[in-house]
Amino acid sequence: MNAVTKTVLTSGAFDLIHYGHIRLLEEAKRLGGPDARLVVIIARDETVIRLKGRRPTFPEDQRRALIEALEVVDEALLGYEDLDMATVIEKVKPDIIAVGYDQDDIEEMARRIVEERGLDVEVHRLEKFVKEDLDSSSKIKRKIVEDLRSNY
Amino acid sequence: MNAVTKTVLTSGAFDLIHYGHIRLLEEAKRLGGPDARLVVIIARDETVIRLKGRRPTFPEDQRRALIEALEVVDEALLGYEDLDMATVIEKVKPDIIAVGYDQDDIEEMARRIVEERGLDVEVHRLEKFVKEDLDSSSKIKRKIVEDLRSNY
Repeated sequence: MNAVTKTVLTSGAFDLIHYGHIRLLEEAKRLGGPDARLVVIIARDETVIRLKGRRPTFPEDQRRALIEALEVVDEALLGYEDLDMATVIEKVKPDIIAVGYDQDDIEEMARRIVEERGLDVEVHRLEKFVKEDLDSSSKIKRKIVEDLRSNY
Repeated sequence: MNAVTKTVLTSGAFDLIHYGHIRLLEEAKRLGGPDARLVVIIARDETVIRLKGRRPTFPEDQRRALIEALEVVDEALLGYEDLDMATVIEKVKPDIIAVGYDQDDIEEMARRIVEERGLDVEVHRLEKFVKEDLDSSSKIKRKIVEDLRSNY
């Protein structure tokens, strides 16, 4: 008998890709066991603007294509308008939703939808892996600015 | 009879990964046919400093791990001191060396080594694929700085 393939769903903006993203995605996939399928929702440009107050460096199509090019990722999809999580869950039918360590709002939203609809979905909070400085796009941008300044 | 697996070798700093890198790596692999193996040499931090005059945003270990996490890449290795291409060719034994559109020095060096040693290695210059603005780490960095400025 084959093991049932579990689908893990996670999401993010993934603007400036760094090694911490890979670790995060690998850990998310691991939650679903050896045959897991990892589906990643990429936040739309408009969603990033609304949540972070600025346009991402890379447009949504390029952010999506880059994440899908990772070996650990089985499918990368653009989010719906306003990152409508109920629609995403209905479409992807995940067994597990992996929430980033800094995704408080997404965790709350996921738990509410799962509870309201009585779904058999585990919501799992991922830990912060990379202890180094460059663990977010904002920090990377600041470092780039500082590096450029120190060269002139 | 199985088709012979061809090894394609390419190289770069791969500091701020963007969609153009994926296109480039896919095209490099395609040169070796359907069963090709793609080996990527990642420039050492010291090599980047020497060639570009500044430290890369991400350290060499992280740049290497990120490239190896791409589905299209079979192996990613750190370059030798001074990106010693003769040693790299001896170790990787490529059938094809794929050179980026802006890697004049690397192309010249590769052709010289192949000729001097009488190797059966094809040196192939890749075209520039991504016509968009964000096709180099330098341009990405400039955009990040401009975006940050326009927000304050």
